Amino acid sequence: METAKAIGAMGTAGTEAARVLAADLGGYVGESVRVAGWLHAVRALGGVTFALVRDRTGITQVVFAATPPALVGLGVESVIAVTGRVVAEERAAGGAELHADGENAVAVLAAVTEQPPFEINKRTLNAHLDTFLDHAAVGLRHPAKAATFRIVGAMAGALRAAFEARGCTEIHTPKIVAGATEGGANLFPVRYFARDAALAQSPQLYKQMMVGALERVYEIAPVFRAEPHATTRHLNEYVSVDVEIGFITDHHTVMRFLRESLADAFARVAAERAADLALLGATVPTVGDIPAIHFRDALELITTKYGDNVRGETDLAPQHERWLGAWAREEYGADFLFVEGYPTTKRPFYTMPDPARPGYTNGFDLLYRGLEVTTGGQRIHGEAQLRASMARFGIAPEGFAGYLEAFHYGMPPHGGFAIGLERLVGQLLGLANVREAALFPRDLHRLTP
Amino acid sequence: METAKAIGAMGTAGTEAARVLAADLGGYVGESVRVAGWLHAVRALGGVTFALVRDRTGITQVVFAATPPALVGLGVESVIAVTGRVVAEERAAGGAELHADGENAVAVLAAVTEQPPFEINKRTLNAHLDTFLDHAAVGLRHPAKAATFRIVGAMAGALRAAFEARGCTEIHTPKIVAGATEGGANLFPVRYFARDAALAQSPQLYKQMMVGALERVYEIAPVFRAEPHATTRHLNEYVSVDVEIGFITDHHTVMRFLRESLADAFARVAAERAADLALLGATVPTVGDIPAIHFRDALELITTKYGDNVRGETDLAPQHERWLGAWAREEYGADFLFVEGYPTTKRPFYTMPDPARPGYTNGFDLLYRGLEVTTGGQRIHGEAQLRASMARFGIAPEGFAGYLEAFHYGMPPHGGFAIGLERLVGQLLGLANVREAALFPRDLHRLTP
Repeated sequence: METAKAIGAMGTAGTEAARVLAADLGGYVGESVRVAGWLHAVRALGGVTFALVRDRTGITQVVFAATPPALVGLGVESVIAVTGRVVAEERAAGGAELHADGENAVAVLAAVTEQPPFEINKRTLNAHLDTFLDHAAVGLRHPAKAATFRIVGAMAGALRAAFEARGCTEIHTPKIVAGATEGGANLFPVRYFARDAALAQSPQLYKQMMVGALERVYEIAPVFRAEPHATTRHLNEYVSVDVEIGFITDHHTVMRFLRESLADAFARVAAERAADLALLGATVPTVGDIPAIHFRDALELITTKYGDNVRGETDLAPQHERWLGAWAREEYGADFLFVEGYPTTKRPFYTMPDPARPGYTNGFDLLYRGLEVTTGGQRIHGEAQLRASMARFGIAPEGFAGYLEAFHYGMPPHGGFAIGLERLVGQLLGLANVREAALFPRDLHRLTP
Repeated sequence: METAKAIGAMGTAGTEAARVLAADLGGYVGESVRVAGWLHAVRALGGVTFALVRDRTGITQVVFAATPPALVGLGVESVIAVTGRVVAEERAAGGAELHADGENAVAVLAAVTEQPPFEINKRTLNAHLDTFLDHAAVGLRHPAKAATFRIVGAMAGALRAAFEARGCTEIHTPKIVAGATEGGANLFPVRYFARDAALAQSPQLYKQMMVGALERVYEIAPVFRAEPHATTRHLNEYVSVDVEIGFITDHHTVMRFLRESLADAFARVAAERAADLALLGATVPTVGDIPAIHFRDALELITTKYGDNVRGETDLAPQHERWLGAWAREEYGADFLFVEGYPTTKRPFYTMPDPARPGYTNGFDLLYRGLEVTTGGQRIHGEAQLRASMARFGIAPEGFAGYLEAFHYGMPPHGGFAIGLERLVGQLLGLANVREAALFPRDLHRLTP
């Protein structure tokens, strides 16, 4: 039997000592290094061959005195490693380029012989969205796409940091559930061993229960909506950023928490992903004060200012949200607008009614550039009031035993919100379709890749 | 129409200016403050009434000169707020207690009249696991349970921080998929509009595809396994901590990455959740060098040292893992042990074979105190080799078009791993059953709450 080897004594994997990344090349001028990545482009110019090698941090320009045999016939997107000497070069990205070590400097790690379905090395990826999504495994390599998803990842991290700084605990709640959170519609059925189950539309009930144990909780996880929509705003599976906090005064406590968290998260994303944002031509707004308008006043505004008589309506259509967004920008210079006090009939059973305005709730939406990106509100915390609300909505309490038990044993005034991560980033980057902020979107027609 | 109000000008929600948390009480000696939380316990002693008020940071001792009317008949777990003056008191937690402002000092936010199903205010929660899980909404309030889940949350955050520090990007991949990742067994079927779909067993194929775009990626998200097991080690839905990195040498690069990430994450959890760990009597080990043993040598060790003839076996049973864990502790003083080189027949089709040892792979498991908490390895990155492996496993390439496209257009040598979050924390805390590390576990018999 061999003696066991110790993993840890072999150098460090984190620093990739043997490879220099594009972004770090400028620090190695005069040294011999190895770069590795995808062959982004090749061109011959005046007897010299230039190869661009793309890695996760950028692109390295490699100069060959003569075309090396390994590059002959080698297609773009091939994976290569090149050794050479780093030379200062003002015109190259990062102020340096690699002068390859002769004609054997290239090692081919994976050879590509066919042209990819789109040109990854053009500034703009010219592809119809459906074609792009069909070939996402390749299309996502485009620098603009990779930048987009680094920003999505950074936004999730920045929101977590904002919630942690405010005393929240991260939770993980089940996605396979026995029944509906908010009524029986729009559920994807799951066969769970011998039982019928469903995919969770939202962690709503669980996050409320967890307020009883941890007071302030958040979860960033997939939710599933079997809505047979085919719009540019909907996904059937998306990442929901859920928060729930206890000991609030009313929904304004939640709105302030949300405003402050977004302000912190946006500032963090702007700092962490400055290069990606610049590549995409996007500017992160400063989240200052956010104006708030009551739902009833919003209807009046739409009616008088935009000439669409919506008095008596119980919800806002996408065009109404766009008008309100335009008004907030015009009137307050604001990208964000809270609409508060949605009607009781249009909010789920757990929503706290507005004690001062019968028929209206302490529920709100947050519009970002005229699109709803967050829904939230104060919840009912008294058991008797909650049971009465369920009865009014025709919801049988039997399916909600675990939830109601939390209320039976004492729940504080509480509330929360849910942000659609793809929508939030989509609006930030000005994407025309929310699918562009999802790696592998799921919709009415799309289940692969 | 009312003028819109500005959310942001109303003070700050993050600091809860109006409420002092238990952990902060010592900083307010001599001041009048308000505390709020759950009525943890009440006792009368020599004409004085003591109430313990529990919030997310600890317990405040409140002293009443006479029993206030609001407390008469009020059950534990009621939610209350109390105003009073903070007085230094060495014997109280945090060195201070609250002297209530007379008999009207108490506001009841939610009254509880019945005894909870278990005693939340006893040091140990005496309940059978099934009873506890049936009443999780209440049981999770027990300080030891709340501490457990703050540690679960902190571990997820600490692992993320370790991966981010090593250049990984967070990704979100779909959980509704068209087919199996690793063969057709153990899938939960989902009805997706008019189509048959399934819940993802793992983000394996997606994270590999994303190596092509972002090189180093991670995802912490639910996975679903329809395994009809009922063991203390299995959940049918659990949180999988998935990482995949490109430009590796072989699986040892991945093992080093994992070792370093765990070392960082454990140190961070130890620092961030010191009080919770102390409450649970748990000590976080320092992750130093991790011994590694080849699968073949592990079989030999079990056969010769523990007298169970397992020569020729292709997998390890739980008892084998426990023996190996005991051996690693005895021989190396190590809590962790890598077992590398699992047989080809027991690893999925995408696993890189060991070029030096036919029949064995560059796949590994990580045992923590004798339990497998991580599976990982190097993957096949060449398209031809991958297709040949699929053929050997009898897997038709048609269902894998999007995946194979990534390989057709150039994939670097890569590998990764998946950690079961609940198992990792369960072992850290010495929990007897992995269900104790899941808020609302899903198993063969449990779909609620």
